[in-house]
Amino acid sequence: MEIDIQFVPSPPSPGILSNRAVVVIDVLRATSVMVHALSQGALEIIPVATVEEAFQTAKSFAPGTALLGGERESKRIPGFDLGNSPREYVSGKVNGKRLILTTTNGTKAFHLVSSGEEIIVGSFLNIRATAQRCFGLDRDLLLFPSGDKGNFSLEDTVCGGMLIDLILGKGRKPIVLTDASRAAHILYEQFKANLVEALRLSNHGKDLIDLGLGDDLPYCSQTDITSLVPIYKEGVIRAH
Amino acid sequence: MEIDIQFVPSPPSPGILSNRAVVVIDVLRATSVMVHALSQGALEIIPVATVEEAFQTAKSFAPGTALLGGERESKRIPGFDLGNSPREYVSGKVNGKRLILTTTNGTKAFHLVSSGEEIIVGSFLNIRATAQRCFGLDRDLLLFPSGDKGNFSLEDTVCGGMLIDLILGKGRKPIVLTDASRAAHILYEQFKANLVEALRLSNHGKDLIDLGLGDDLPYCSQTDITSLVPIYKEGVIRAH
Repeated sequence: MEIDIQFVPSPPSPGILSNRAVVVIDVLRATSVMVHALSQGALEIIPVATVEEAFQTAKSFAPGTALLGGERESKRIPGFDLGNSPREYVSGKVNGKRLILTTTNGTKAFHLVSSGEEIIVGSFLNIRATAQRCFGLDRDLLLFPSGDKGNFSLEDTVCGGMLIDLILGKGRKPIVLTDASRAAHILYEQFKANLVEALRLSNHGKDLIDLGLGDDLPYCSQTDITSLVPIYKEGVIRAH
Repeated sequence: MEIDIQFVPSPPSPGILSNRAVVVIDVLRATSVMVHALSQGALEIIPVATVEEAFQTAKSFAPGTALLGGERESKRIPGFDLGNSPREYVSGKVNGKRLILTTTNGTKAFHLVSSGEEIIVGSFLNIRATAQRCFGLDRDLLLFPSGDKGNFSLEDTVCGGMLIDLILGKGRKPIVLTDASRAAHILYEQFKANLVEALRLSNHGKDLIDLGLGDDLPYCSQTDITSLVPIYKEGVIRAH
């Protein structure tokens, strides 16, 4: 079983996704929102690329059954029901609802890896359950940080590194690391005693703090508040 | 002054190279060979992409004045004078000669960044002088690891991280790090007491050990055996 991590969210090389499970990670904040929303009873999540597509998709559902969520430049989109803070996605708002989500980095990542064998939604919030799922699948794994506007993202990589650490810790089968996954693991080890520090040092974390959204950083760096493992399949994310 | 590092050797985004100095790093082994060869008296180095182009380029020089060097699958190319081990490039062979070099990763990297404002050849062998040069230029910097067959390379990134550390250590001007350069710096700090360990753990380092070329690892992880800073300009690398 090989674990690789792609540091930059460009389209994976052809062939790399066949027979691989993929874990998409966008700690700040798309995959944290997804995991949180499903844990609070949301029915399913439809990630879409554009704001226009979000409004269009909403029209195909009965009124009152779907909510629009997401951000542009980290802020709530005019006409949307919810922004991109997991703290907004509480049971009272999302229980039993379908969510249509569009974000700058995270929702795009799912479309880039849509040909993977299984596409898992990873975050700190469900990291131990995600590791368990990956270990159980027993196939090669590509961790796919959503990045920061196309660039390397420190917080997503540290989350990937923690996932690697948990999988290695299970210790019952040989795991092959690439240079990239080894580096991610080393980066995690530097922050493991203080995960939120990785988020605070990151470019995107600093932007959120500047926008008054700093409370999302400790929120998104909580580990294992749920054991849900959402799966992306045919354009929709549902709890496994 | 911003320091960024591009973890994967794909063509940089348009515009990113204008007004930036670039440091190309291929610890194992192209930039180590270049720095070593020039320190041993080689006249200049012409990096070319293909074996055919190397033979073709050689024809344009008087017999006996140019040497062919490089590798494919880490081995010397049939008909070439030298392989890709810096230990081969000693004064007795290269002094006063022009070198035509083709390697799997390193020589290609120069062509990818050829529109940079200044293109510096970096390695552990000349790292302090390279840091001094970068600091003196006082412009934004892109570190460009040559990677391992298009993938992230641990040893090049650790070398980039050491360069960042040395530049930060000069401490007289504000330096902005990106998430990627911050990660490279953290990775360097993990290996700084034992640089050769980063080379031994790396995918490419392991390949070289398997091929009986393991002695190149400690050789290429020596720091500051020369103060030369080679510059790539108009297709040719010369000592600054």
